[in-house]
Amino acid sequence: MDAARPDTRYERGLKNLAAIDGAAGERVIDALADVAPDFARLLIEFPFGDIYDRPGLDLRSREIATVAALAALGNARPQLEVHLHAALNVGVSREELIEILMQMAVYAGFPAALNGLFAAKAVFAERDAVAAGRAP
Amino acid sequence: MDAARPDTRYERGLKNLAAIDGAAGERVIDALADVAPDFARLLIEFPFGDIYDRPGLDLRSREIATVAALAALGNARPQLEVHLHAALNVGVSREELIEILMQMAVYAGFPAALNGLFAAKAVFAERDAVAAGRAP
Amino acid sequence: MDAARPDTRYERGLKNLAAIDGAAGERVIDALADVAPDFARLLIEFPFGDIYDRPGLDLRSREIATVAALAALGNARPQLEVHLHAALNVGVSREELIEILMQMAVYAGFPAALNGLFAAKAVFAERDAVAAGRAP
Amino acid sequence: MDAARPDTRYERGLKNLAAIDGAAGERVIDALADVAPDFARLLIEFPFGDIYDRPGLDLRSREIATVAALAALGNARPQLEVHLHAALNVGVSREELIEILMQMAVYAGFPAALNGLFAAKAVFAERDAVAAGRAP
Amino acid sequence: MDAARPDTRYERGLKNLAAIDGAAGERVIDALADVAPDFARLLIEFPFGDIYDRPGLDLRSREIATVAALAALGNARPQLEVHLHAALNVGVSREELIEILMQMAVYAGFPAALNGLFAAKAVFAERDAVAAGRAP
Amino acid sequence: MDAARPDTRYERGLKNLAAIDGAAGERVIDALADVAPDFARLLIEFPFGDIYDRPGLDLRSREIATVAALAALGNARPQLEVHLHAALNVGVSREELIEILMQMAVYAGFPAALNGLFAAKAVFAERDAVAAGRAP
Repeated sequence: MDAARPDTRYERGLKNLAAIDGAAGERVIDALADVAPDFARLLIEFPFGDIYDRPGLDLRSREIATVAALAALGNARPQLEVHLHAALNVGVSREELIEILMQMAVYAGFPAALNGLFAAKAVFAERDAVAAGRAP
Repeated sequence: MDAARPDTRYERGLKNLAAIDGAAGERVIDALADVAPDFARLLIEFPFGDIYDRPGLDLRSREIATVAALAALGNARPQLEVHLHAALNVGVSREELIEILMQMAVYAGFPAALNGLFAAKAVFAERDAVAAGRAP
Repeated sequence: MDAARPDTRYERGLKNLAAIDGAAGERVIDALADVAPDFARLLIEFPFGDIYDRPGLDLRSREIATVAALAALGNARPQLEVHLHAALNVGVSREELIEILMQMAVYAGFPAALNGLFAAKAVFAERDAVAAGRAP
Repeated sequence: MDAARPDTRYERGLKNLAAIDGAAGERVIDALADVAPDFARLLIEFPFGDIYDRPGLDLRSREIATVAALAALGNARPQLEVHLHAALNVGVSREELIEILMQMAVYAGFPAALNGLFAAKAVFAERDAVAAGRAP
Repeated sequence: MDAARPDTRYERGLKNLAAIDGAAGERVIDALADVAPDFARLLIEFPFGDIYDRPGLDLRSREIATVAALAALGNARPQLEVHLHAALNVGVSREELIEILMQMAVYAGFPAALNGLFAAKAVFAERDAVAAGRAP
Repeated sequence: MDAARPDTRYERGLKNLAAIDGAAGERVIDALADVAPDFARLLIEFPFGDIYDRPGLDLRSREIATVAALAALGNARPQLEVHLHAALNVGVSREELIEILMQMAVYAGFPAALNGLFAAKAVFAERDAVAAGRAP
C-alpha cells in the first residue's frame, strides 16, 4: 500500500485538479506536454496533490485566497481566469467574486482591482456562452 | 437623515475598524495623527466604511482574501500582522491561517509563504503573551 | 446644502474624472456597468472625488506621480495609457513624459521603462490619429 | 575638451548627487566602497550623470516621480527615505510629499501609502532633529 | 585615444548587444527611434556597454541571471523572450532554460514559472520556424 | 525499492538542503517546527527533493538563478541571504555574486541592486567573522 504512495499523490492531485480547475486545468497540463512535461507532473503533485488536498481549510476558502492573491499580484491574468472558474466550481458566487476583487483596490490599488474585475467579466461571459450552448 | 450620511460613513468605518482590526487598527490611526490626519480619515471611510461594510461577502471571507493578498505581495509586513489579528478576531482559526499562508507558496513562491508564516508565528506569540497576562 | 454632500462628492469626482481622464475615463466607467457598477461609483468617489480633488498638490504633479508609479509597477498597461492621456490633458508635455518614463529605468529597471515608453508611443500615435481626423 | 567627457560625466553625476541627495547620497556611496566600488561609480554616472542631468524635466518633477515610484513599489524603504530628503532639497514641500504618498493608495494600495507616510514621518523627524541642533 | 572613450563605450555596447540579443535587440533599438532615441543610446551604453562588458562573470551566467529575474518579476514578457533568445545565443541549452524557469516556481510561484515556460515554448517555436526556413 | 520512494524524496531533499543551504537552511526548518511543521516537510520535499535534485542544471547555475530572482523581487531579504551563502557553498565566487547583483540594476532597478549588494556585504562579513573564529 505504501508502495503505491507516489502514484497516489499524483492521482490525488489529478483528481483535485479536475474537481477544482476543470477543463481549464486540463488545458494547462496539455499545453505543457511538449515543452515541460515534468513541470506538468510537479504542478499536479505539489499544488493539487499536496496543498489543495490538505483537510485544514475548505476549498471555498482556498479559492477565495487564490483569487485574492492572483488579483493583487496583477501579473498572472491566465491563472487568475483559471481560478475565477475554479472558485465558481467550488461554490463561490459571482457576487462574492466581485466583492473580493473590489476589496483588492484597498490592498493592491485600483488598477489591480479593475484588471481583476475585467478578468471576471470575461470569465462570466465565457460561462454564459457555454451555458447558452454556444462555443466558448 | 440623508444629511447625516457623511458622518455615518465615517462612523460606520470606525465601528468596522474597531470590530475587525481592534487595537492594532487604532494604533495605525494614532500613528497617522501628526503626519497625515486626512489619510487616517480616508482609511476609515473607504476601506472600512465603504468596502468592509458591504453585505455581499462575510467578514471571515474578507479577511481570508486580505491575508492571502498581503502575504502574496510580500512587502507589507505591518499590515499583514494587523490582518492576521483581524482574521483571528472574525473567526478564522490559527490552523486555517497557516493553511492560507502555506498555499501562498504555490502562487507567490516559498519566500512569500515563509515570511507570512513567520509573521503568523509572531502574531500568535503576541496573543499568547496577552492571554497569559503579560504585556505584548 | 450639507445634505447634498454625498451627491457632491460623487459629482465632484465625475467632474474631475472628465477633466483629467477624459473619454478614456468614461470608457472604464462604462465597461464596469454590467459587472461591478458599485465599483464604478467608488472609483469616481474615492480617487477622483477624494484624492484628486485635494488642493495640496497641482494636477500636473499628480499625473507625474501616477505615470511614474504605474510605469514602475509594470502590471497595469491599460491604466498607464489612461494616465498618459491624462497627463497630456493637464499640461505635461510629451517630452516630459518621455523623461519620466526613461527615469523609471533607474528605479524599476530597463524593462519597466521600455514598456512604459512603448505605451507612450501608442498613446501619442492615437492622439495624432485623432488630431488628423482619423478614427483612433 | 571632448577628451575630458568621461571624467565630466562622472563629475557631473557627483555634482548632481550632492545637490539632490546630499549627505544621504554620500552615505550610500561610502557604504558601497568596500563591497562594490564599481557600482558606486556606475550609480554616480548613470542615474545622476546621465538621467538627472537631462534638461527635459525639472528636478522637482523628477523627485515627484521618484518618490511616487519608490512608494508604489514598496520594497525599497532606504531609497524612499533618501528621495524624500532629496525631494525636500529640490523644493517639494512636506505637504506635497504627503499628498503624493496618499495618492499612492489609489495605484498601489493602502499598505504602500501607509508605509510611505511612515517613512515621511521618520524623515521629517530626522530633519527637525537636525534643525534643532540635535544629532540625527 | 581617451578622447574616443564615449564612442568606444557606445560601440562596445552595440557590439555586445549584437552578440547577445541579436536581431531581437536591434528591433528594440529600432522601435525606440521615433519616440525616445536617447533611451536607445542609454540602453546600448549602460546595460551593454557597462554591465555585460565586465569581465567578472561569463555571458552564460549573466543570461541565466537575467532569465531568472525576468521570469520571477513576471511583468516583462517581451524582454523575457529577448533574453531567452540571448541565453540560447550564448550557449545555454533549451533543457537548461526549462530547468531555470521551473525553478522559479519555488521563488516566485507557479504562475510565474508557467508564464515563463509558455514564453520559452513560443521562443523555441520561433527558432524552429526560422531554422526550417519559414518566416518567424 | 519503489515502496521507499516517499521517504527517499524527503531524504534526498534533506541531503540537498544540507549541501546547498547548510546551517542557514537548518535554521529555517527549525524556526518552522512549532508553527508549521508540515511546511518544513514540504520545503524539504518540493524545492530540495524535487527541483534542486534534477540533473538538467548544475547547482552553480541554479544558485545564480535564485540569487538573481530574489534580488530582483526585492521582498525576501532573509531568503536572499540564505542563498548568497548557498551560492558561495556551491562554488560561485564573491566577485561573481557582486556582478550578478550589479546586473539586477538593469532589470529591477538600482534600489533592488543596492539592497542586494548590502545583503552580500552582510553575508561576506558574517563568513569572515566565522572564518576568524568569532561567533557570527
